[in-house]
Amino acid sequence: MLRRHPLDPLSAEEIAIVANVVRSWKPRNELLYRVITLFEPPKKELIAYLDAENLGIEPRGSPKRIAKVHAYIDKNFHELLVDIDSANVIRDEVLHERHSHVDSAYMKQVELACLQNSEVQAEIEALRLPQGATVIVEPWTYATDGMNNMSERITMCWFYMRLSKHTDANYYAYPLDIVAEVSDSLETTKVFRLPLTGNDLDNHRRESYDHGKIHSSSEYHPDLVGHRRTTTKPLHVTQPEGPSFEINGYHITWEKWTMRVGFNYREGLTLHDIRYDNRSLFYRLSLSEMFVPYGDPRVPYPRKGAFDLGNDGAGVNANNLKLGCDCLGHIKYFDAWHVTNSGDPLKLPNVVCCHEIDDGILWKHTNFRTGNAVVTRSRLLVLQTIITVSNYEYVFIFYFGQDASINYEVRATGILSTAPIKTGDRVSFGTVVAPGVMAPYHQHLFCLRIDPALDGYQNSLMVEESVPMAFPDSSNPFGVGYITDSKVLSEEIGLDLDHRKNRTFKIINENSINPTTSTPVGFKLLPCYSQMLLAHPTSFHAKRSEFGTHAVWVTRHSDEELFAAGTHTMQSLGGEGIASWIKSRQEDNIAETNIRNEDIVVWHTFGSTHNPRIEDWPVMPCEKMVVSLKPVNFFDKNPGLDVPISTQERNKSVLVGEKDLERIDREAEKSRL
Amino acid sequence: MLRRHPLDPLSAEEIAIVANVVRSWKPRNELLYRVITLFEPPKKELIAYLDAENLGIEPRGSPKRIAKVHAYIDKNFHELLVDIDSANVIRDEVLHERHSHVDSAYMKQVELACLQNSEVQAEIEALRLPQGATVIVEPWTYATDGMNNMSERITMCWFYMRLSKHTDANYYAYPLDIVAEVSDSLETTKVFRLPLTGNDLDNHRRESYDHGKIHSSSEYHPDLVGHRRTTTKPLHVTQPEGPSFEINGYHITWEKWTMRVGFNYREGLTLHDIRYDNRSLFYRLSLSEMFVPYGDPRVPYPRKGAFDLGNDGAGVNANNLKLGCDCLGHIKYFDAWHVTNSGDPLKLPNVVCCHEIDDGILWKHTNFRTGNAVVTRSRLLVLQTIITVSNYEYVFIFYFGQDASINYEVRATGILSTAPIKTGDRVSFGTVVAPGVMAPYHQHLFCLRIDPALDGYQNSLMVEESVPMAFPDSSNPFGVGYITDSKVLSEEIGLDLDHRKNRTFKIINENSINPTTSTPVGFKLLPCYSQMLLAHPTSFHAKRSEFGTHAVWVTRHSDEELFAAGTHTMQSLGGEGIASWIKSRQEDNIAETNIRNEDIVVWHTFGSTHNPRIEDWPVMPCEKMVVSLKPVNFFDKNPGLDVPISTQERNKSVLVGEKDLERIDREAEKSRL
Repeated sequence: MLRRHPLDPLSAEEIAIVANVVRSWKPRNELLYRVITLFEPPKKELIAYLDAENLGIEPRGSPKRIAKVHAYIDKNFHELLVDIDSANVIRDEVLHERHSHVDSAYMKQVELACLQNSEVQAEIEALRLPQGATVIVEPWTYATDGMNNMSERITMCWFYMRLSKHTDANYYAYPLDIVAEVSDSLETTKVFRLPLTGNDLDNHRRESYDHGKIHSSSEYHPDLVGHRRTTTKPLHVTQPEGPSFEINGYHITWEKWTMRVGFNYREGLTLHDIRYDNRSLFYRLSLSEMFVPYGDPRVPYPRKGAFDLGNDGAGVNANNLKLGCDCLGHIKYFDAWHVTNSGDPLKLPNVVCCHEIDDGILWKHTNFRTGNAVVTRSRLLVLQTIITVSNYEYVFIFYFGQDASINYEVRATGILSTAPIKTGDRVSFGTVVAPGVMAPYHQHLFCLRIDPALDGYQNSLMVEESVPMAFPDSSNPFGVGYITDSKVLSEEIGLDLDHRKNRTFKIINENSINPTTSTPVGFKLLPCYSQMLLAHPTSFHAKRSEFGTHAVWVTRHSDEELFAAGTHTMQSLGGEGIASWIKSRQEDNIAETNIRNEDIVVWHTFGSTHNPRIEDWPVMPCEKMVVSLKPVNFFDKNPGLDVPISTQERNKSVLVGEKDLERIDREAEKSRL
Repeated sequence: MLRRHPLDPLSAEEIAIVANVVRSWKPRNELLYRVITLFEPPKKELIAYLDAENLGIEPRGSPKRIAKVHAYIDKNFHELLVDIDSANVIRDEVLHERHSHVDSAYMKQVELACLQNSEVQAEIEALRLPQGATVIVEPWTYATDGMNNMSERITMCWFYMRLSKHTDANYYAYPLDIVAEVSDSLETTKVFRLPLTGNDLDNHRRESYDHGKIHSSSEYHPDLVGHRRTTTKPLHVTQPEGPSFEINGYHITWEKWTMRVGFNYREGLTLHDIRYDNRSLFYRLSLSEMFVPYGDPRVPYPRKGAFDLGNDGAGVNANNLKLGCDCLGHIKYFDAWHVTNSGDPLKLPNVVCCHEIDDGILWKHTNFRTGNAVVTRSRLLVLQTIITVSNYEYVFIFYFGQDASINYEVRATGILSTAPIKTGDRVSFGTVVAPGVMAPYHQHLFCLRIDPALDGYQNSLMVEESVPMAFPDSSNPFGVGYITDSKVLSEEIGLDLDHRKNRTFKIINENSINPTTSTPVGFKLLPCYSQMLLAHPTSFHAKRSEFGTHAVWVTRHSDEELFAAGTHTMQSLGGEGIASWIKSRQEDNIAETNIRNEDIVVWHTFGSTHNPRIEDWPVMPCEKMVVSLKPVNFFDKNPGLDVPISTQERNKSVLVGEKDLERIDREAEKSRL
């Protein structure tokens, strides 16, 4: 086997080894594999390795390569740790009353079982659906509302109909008013009708389907959309000398940046050991969790609340990105490996794409005395992954800038989750997007986990506000003075944004003072201003998604704490997230809770309160959310000062003259005739 | 003369005609031309014309082409209106106690006069500057602090030194502690020394220049920056079939959008009659004003407060954009015309560039049942203009999307304004960015003027918040329900942002109801969350920049009200901006103040509290601020649904394989050796 870096995701070969180790460990038991993934080395061990490596010193021994395994062994949910090199199980724990992430094979069984249930069939019969209609069951994990036994896996089955024979016809355009609950053992335990009006809280009458809802405007697949615009002319990106990055395995070097790409079934893309110009910046950047609670209050809709990472997995749901479709220009793809239920390595091809884009002007100045302009263009490195979770898709992108800034962008696209509604009716918690189709209000709450390493691993979080100087006051004679008011935090806490005070969150290293500014080196978080969770604090939605109550959290680093809503989100009851970690440490007098000049983690919760527009239908144009990290008095000057000067010789743009446009006009004229 | 559209900026020929009309009007007087620009037709007249034109009907007569002229006639500041076709002066008004926008020719005289002043020379002498140093005077308009006679034009002269013989050496790296005031008649009326420490409010001692401040790290010009990175490989954008836009004069057609480009000396780029798919959206979009107040409280720094539009002019300071430098891809440029002091037409070449960019994914959905992905890429139309105002530059960009969204982006770049500081000292209202160089805190406050025309000119502004439903309550049994709470405004007002409530500002047309959603058609403003003005409400900064106190304003349309800080900002005393307009109408019982279902204007104030980082030095990487306008239940579905499906055949991306990277690795290895 090739020598692997401690942060490299597991290879197919490693996964096969681990599966065999577990098989030998439980030779006579029924075994269903769910996860075989890298168990990242403890930070303490890893930083010794990384720091040596970055100094060009041969690290003194590599941390052991350990795999974390999730498997059902005789139907009990186990978590095992396997030492790959020694081929030993080093831990085996049964996780009682916990559930593995969504099993798509199982979900297919749920669909079938539900459709075969006689009560379900009777309800479908009663709908008197149009001829040729295919009923589609969309199974969702049960977002706990306290009405069921939590220790058993329960699936909610929502019903839709596909009218066209085309298998890509949009069945979300035909939500039916049936819902069913399916037990872990595939029994349909409850079948009932959904409300069809806003006021209808309990009275779910058995009515037949209103054929007046049938319409033709909700398709998105090119086979089914008649007219398509032809005005968009092709645009190509070429790099005659190739891309500016170098990639060695999972290690990327680009424009003074170095970093390692990681990938796992749950978080999908992770980034590690991020450095600029050989200076350490971030130990690990990852999307920690996301939660999509729905705002429809009517029974049983409070059961819609998706943890798309914890329950579904951003890694296993990552799209196989296609050259020229998802990515434009010169593209390098990364693959990853997962495991089948039977323990075979499963390739997840092209889950991350890496390429460059031009981002307009990086900096410019014209000396008005000489008329001389100096301008540089901004090149960005893009690392993109896209996931599909049932109806929705999310695009997750890290952008690295030549000025040492990082942007993290989330784009929400895909198809809205829909519910049936009586024609002509409206509700105050949703938008009617097509006849009989209501798209309920919902929130998308993301939590970005930022594990900083600014000039080392002892960092602090400073909160800074811009405040007017006292007035009247002799030091502020004209009332225009303002200063910054800074506070370095000493305790773990969740905090809110306040643009009115220009409240700024700076990660700093108090041991590393910028010689020119005489202030600690730092990076600031440019947050995405978002409404926090709307669900009531006592609701299960709130208890399960503790990170959703504050925009910025800071905690002391713990290897165990990667997931802001807790490690086990599937049907979780709450009380296991970031607020609980902090509370328990504050209550426990033994735990070390100081976070100043310590190994800290900063978490940023952001997202959107998504009250659908009809323009989001039938497939939604990307809604962008952006978070940035920018150096503040970290370097000794603009780190992008040495970027190549922009010249036509280099950039080869094309002047569009009057004549070109006349020609285009003529052609357009012709095509109109 | 070619037939001109009523919104076309004045041509060279028209400017020449107007200059002659004014010359004939005042044949025997001393004449100094400052502005000859289009006086846009009254909205009432123009909308009749535009609506007919867009229906393809021959408009019944075109609004008269009128020019607005600013000129000094026998040293009195006049505003004249000239009917171009009849060659008549139709108005001539002396603007007492007003000043024209900055006159660069006059500013050069100020520099010279100041340098020739004996007191100034004595102060320079006393500095004992290094040999070869060139003293540079940077004249600034006087931002009223109430200490001078307002009716007279006063210029503040700040002093710098250029050490290198290279004329593009960065003299802002050597601020000197001298300042002078120069009168309208070019007399240096006051010379004094600047404070060198934070506590030094009055004690401005005459000290010699500290030669220890001399350093080499503050240059940006390529001739003066030694090392430059060579890793950035070229990236080209090509459009083999040409761009997707059609341009006819100042009229643009692109991807269902139509609009007219306008340009004037003050606002620079303006956009008019913006429609999508033949539906009217916006009558006029423009940057109304911007204000840059400095937060340094020490005398005389409260005099630093720049109205870069009202005082300097975004049009006259627009850069001559260079192909391949400022713009990448297939570029169409627009020129504009201004006037010299003697009345000759002056070409402002390439002041606006128009091109397309790829913006990643527009929408995507993968049907997880069939595995079929459908993806479209987002193409944007870019209209960019860049201005230089002394040390700073601003990039102003409108982006139009295929999904009918508009983004307005401001990028701040250029060189920080600097002040001298004693080596080793620090201040609480600024950042030391180089030895002896302090960059004071300041704000950039922009005001975007949005004159909507959603399905017509009678629009309303709705404020909508997302609020939890009552709990406990029978209609919200699980505490997860939330609804929107909307209010349509009836009175002119300034309002604040509140992300905690997801407060959303929707421009709607209550006469045009979306048949599917049953709600008024609308566009929402996605604001840029920013701190408002920090200066004390009684300060001149605050009185002069009324728009800086609230993020969103709504007023009844008036042809007179284009500039949120008032029409005459030069040395203004305040009380003439948007808050005063509203107040005076509310006090005046006769004025019609209802704004519901009326012709309204929405104004968005945004910007940055810019507390400089050392990374902003010596030239600052762009700081981006983005505002968006997005349809909300305006169309009947996603307007970008018909965008071409993304395919490799169309997009011709290039796969970067292991071999390419190995080759690159080898080359990198070689170059390292």
